[in-house]
Amino acid sequence: MKTIDLNCDFGESFGVYRLGKEEILPYITSVNIACGFHAGDPLVMRQTVQLAIRHGVAIGAHPGFPDLLGFGRRMMAVSPEEVYAYVVYQIGALAAFVKAEGGVMTHVKPHGALYNMAAKDARISEAIAKAVYDVDPTLILYGLAGSELIRAGQAQGLQTASEVFADRTYQADGSLTPRSDPQAIIADEDEAVKQVLMMVCDRHVRSVQGTAVAIEADTVCLHGDNEQAVRFAKRLHAALQNEGIAIQAMRKETRR
Amino acid sequence: MKTIDLNCDFGESFGVYRLGKEEILPYITSVNIACGFHAGDPLVMRQTVQLAIRHGVAIGAHPGFPDLLGFGRRMMAVSPEEVYAYVVYQIGALAAFVKAEGGVMTHVKPHGALYNMAAKDARISEAIAKAVYDVDPTLILYGLAGSELIRAGQAQGLQTASEVFADRTYQADGSLTPRSDPQAIIADEDEAVKQVLMMVCDRHVRSVQGTAVAIEADTVCLHGDNEQAVRFAKRLHAALQNEGIAIQAMRKETRR
Amino acid sequence: MKTIDLNCDFGESFGVYRLGKEEILPYITSVNIACGFHAGDPLVMRQTVQLAIRHGVAIGAHPGFPDLLGFGRRMMAVSPEEVYAYVVYQIGALAAFVKAEGGVMTHVKPHGALYNMAAKDARISEAIAKAVYDVDPTLILYGLAGSELIRAGQAQGLQTASEVFADRTYQADGSLTPRSDPQAIIADEDEAVKQVLMMVCDRHVRSVQGTAVAIEADTVCLHGDNEQAVRFAKRLHAALQNEGIAIQAMRKETRR
Amino acid sequence: MKTIDLNCDFGESFGVYRLGKEEILPYITSVNIACGFHAGDPLVMRQTVQLAIRHGVAIGAHPGFPDLLGFGRRMMAVSPEEVYAYVVYQIGALAAFVKAEGGVMTHVKPHGALYNMAAKDARISEAIAKAVYDVDPTLILYGLAGSELIRAGQAQGLQTASEVFADRTYQADGSLTPRSDPQAIIADEDEAVKQVLMMVCDRHVRSVQGTAVAIEADTVCLHGDNEQAVRFAKRLHAALQNEGIAIQAMRKETRR
Repeated sequence: MKTIDLNCDFGESFGVYRLGKEEILPYITSVNIACGFHAGDPLVMRQTVQLAIRHGVAIGAHPGFPDLLGFGRRMMAVSPEEVYAYVVYQIGALAAFVKAEGGVMTHVKPHGALYNMAAKDARISEAIAKAVYDVDPTLILYGLAGSELIRAGQAQGLQTASEVFADRTYQADGSLTPRSDPQAIIADEDEAVKQVLMMVCDRHVRSVQGTAVAIEADTVCLHGDNEQAVRFAKRLHAALQNEGIAIQAMRKETRR
Repeated sequence: MKTIDLNCDFGESFGVYRLGKEEILPYITSVNIACGFHAGDPLVMRQTVQLAIRHGVAIGAHPGFPDLLGFGRRMMAVSPEEVYAYVVYQIGALAAFVKAEGGVMTHVKPHGALYNMAAKDARISEAIAKAVYDVDPTLILYGLAGSELIRAGQAQGLQTASEVFADRTYQADGSLTPRSDPQAIIADEDEAVKQVLMMVCDRHVRSVQGTAVAIEADTVCLHGDNEQAVRFAKRLHAALQNEGIAIQAMRKETRR
Repeated sequence: MKTIDLNCDFGESFGVYRLGKEEILPYITSVNIACGFHAGDPLVMRQTVQLAIRHGVAIGAHPGFPDLLGFGRRMMAVSPEEVYAYVVYQIGALAAFVKAEGGVMTHVKPHGALYNMAAKDARISEAIAKAVYDVDPTLILYGLAGSELIRAGQAQGLQTASEVFADRTYQADGSLTPRSDPQAIIADEDEAVKQVLMMVCDRHVRSVQGTAVAIEADTVCLHGDNEQAVRFAKRLHAALQNEGIAIQAMRKETRR
Repeated sequence: MKTIDLNCDFGESFGVYRLGKEEILPYITSVNIACGFHAGDPLVMRQTVQLAIRHGVAIGAHPGFPDLLGFGRRMMAVSPEEVYAYVVYQIGALAAFVKAEGGVMTHVKPHGALYNMAAKDARISEAIAKAVYDVDPTLILYGLAGSELIRAGQAQGLQTASEVFADRTYQADGSLTPRSDPQAIIADEDEAVKQVLMMVCDRHVRSVQGTAVAIEADTVCLHGDNEQAVRFAKRLHAALQNEGIAIQAMRKETRR
């Protein structure tokens, strides 16, 4: 039976500032929780972990750049040593809340510009993989399907999860179409659902060049910051169930 | 045989800014490592943990207020819920570096204004004790001898370490003379050494009012930010050895 | 003819985080713009200044504590020297945007915990008044009616604006009922409108103790962060107009 | 008579952290003062402005990236709109302290990664030049000799100052040798002095390729963070005087 994980960035509030919709939780199976660098704060992290446990979704750390002002979306010229230390720090901070609440941390997914840099830069992705491994070798590393990050995670001996996008188009080489390209986004929800079903069932995606590209799809990235995103999650969830696909979080392999 | 721990705040550098003297390490037995809120950053934390392991000193977390500009020394009107979350977060962040480096975290000591507030405010000290316990119930909680923090730690079921000061005078009620008082600081090093010996050997201290005050001394707080401080540490270390006192870090009790 | 200014805190977004409702602008006559310490960022400040100019409302700086995490609402044990420097810095930052956009800065109103501390602490309020004066002696200092801040501003030679609240109750001594008191907030909008009219027209307010307390009302503080607040502003605006009261921003006196 | 300005970054302390040597001040003619983003804080800015006025050196703003952790030295993928707003904000903040202390701001020099990006990126340099002009069109814009920043300043109608380096080598195209190149730094002080004299007197520099490259030298960048730097400044100062070169700050042109 085919299975898929539906993940969503979560816990992105900060102080008085609110972001994100709890209503997404019934339709997803794992959350990536901001750890206080690009978003999130200690109070928010605690509440988010409690919420995740209550809803039974898998908990992951979502480490990002130390750039609250830019929400971690701006590329920064950091060294691999800095990236390693930032990732260790953030995983540790979240892990403490998970432990305090009696939960389990399942995975780590880099956020924003760190995710994008890690997809292409071997030294950055190796630093991330090593950080994850050094803190807890049983953690699953989420990364863009076919990216340097997935390769680095496997080389490090980590279990990995290849992530695909419902609303982004792909190039013939399997990379995401850059956001600067007008074809980057799939606005039509039917198309987005169809793309996910093809990736999950047929293990390939139709590139903007029209070719079929082989793709590994362990988890689909969903948005959770507005009502339309919640509606789409609900719809995708239903479509996957209709196809008999099991929607469930990644399971940690017993021995690492 | 009498034993005493000598502790020092450490890892207080940030980015390009340097603070603290490594030369203190041979004369102390435990360090309290800044966790990125009032001082310290992920790179500094990693290096500091490596240094502590190399020198064989016990490692503790030194959580503070989120006030880098004020070095965590300014009282802030935080709620117990905020304090709880700040402490969980910071212990977790440091714990990840300790784990990655193959070390062991022994204790937690609140920093600066948080330490001072915890000494007197039962709700703040209970929040700290609960945070420590929830993350790791085997951690030893350092607090001012005779303070609310020590009481809260014991009530929570934590092992505690009563901290005394070499260079601060005491009031008849066992509290520290406030820094605003001209008598607050013991500038004379002979006097400071004598005070520590009296506290460790005789379990009491001479108050500024001239009375003998019973005091528990598990650990002495030393400074490590300048050469004079290093010299004093060396001297106190020698004086304690001369008296046949064992200078060693606190040991975690085997069962908690 | 009686006149009143209606002011509102504004420009409190930060990065991706949004706060505040533009819809309030037609019903108010001056805005207090966050300057990047407790809220606001350089991009937000620029957009907010442009918006204020477009709507013809008077522009003021809204300096706060360096505590984005606490939104500047937490008391911090800062020195008068720190307060002076924080206020100079923030006024200057906003003034540059106002100059770049061809506008005029009219006033300064401390934010949150700084406002509350300034109301009662003479040294803090003197530091604020001196900071405002040193940067621009023609600026109007907004402060709680009857507070230390108003006194300090007058002593410094500044023009001042006494601020009153529509939805807060007053004590017999003219101070605000603390928020911890269940009677602190006036939930009933009729009551709130009535209180403002009494303060503006009759120059007194009915205390929770039932006594009439003389009060100076140059400006009324309105909220602008939700739809209910916008509706109340509209309603108060209409009620004041009905009474023939001129709703207009404070005017800088020509010679200072 | 030939003239040259000797400038130095200054006011880079933050909170308890100290950086920089006052002893440099007698040997330089202008300072670039950190504005709280990459370094500096409101208290430090005030003290630094007071110090600069006391020593009679020209005051400039030294705006940088919002990256205290990286000291503004890490390239960040910021938009021109963000750069514009960051520069306006920081100039304004410093200008308020200069005004409060009765001084005059003379110039603006971008810091670190912002300086380097502005040297090559026309959109970033235009944003900086516009920001400076919009806040105060009489300010002098400091930039790398021959850079996009100098071109953008001139195009904007600003007075500019071409900056050269004593201890950095130059390429045949007039650019600085990247720091990653082992030839980047001139360690020999004799060589460094000679290079400055050649640039000031002969208006050219010897490139690492051996060619003579025409260069404009209005101001020389000196370091001020250690004793060796202070000694070199003293020595360069003497060497320039020996050659009869007037060491003085840039003068604002009377009409702009």
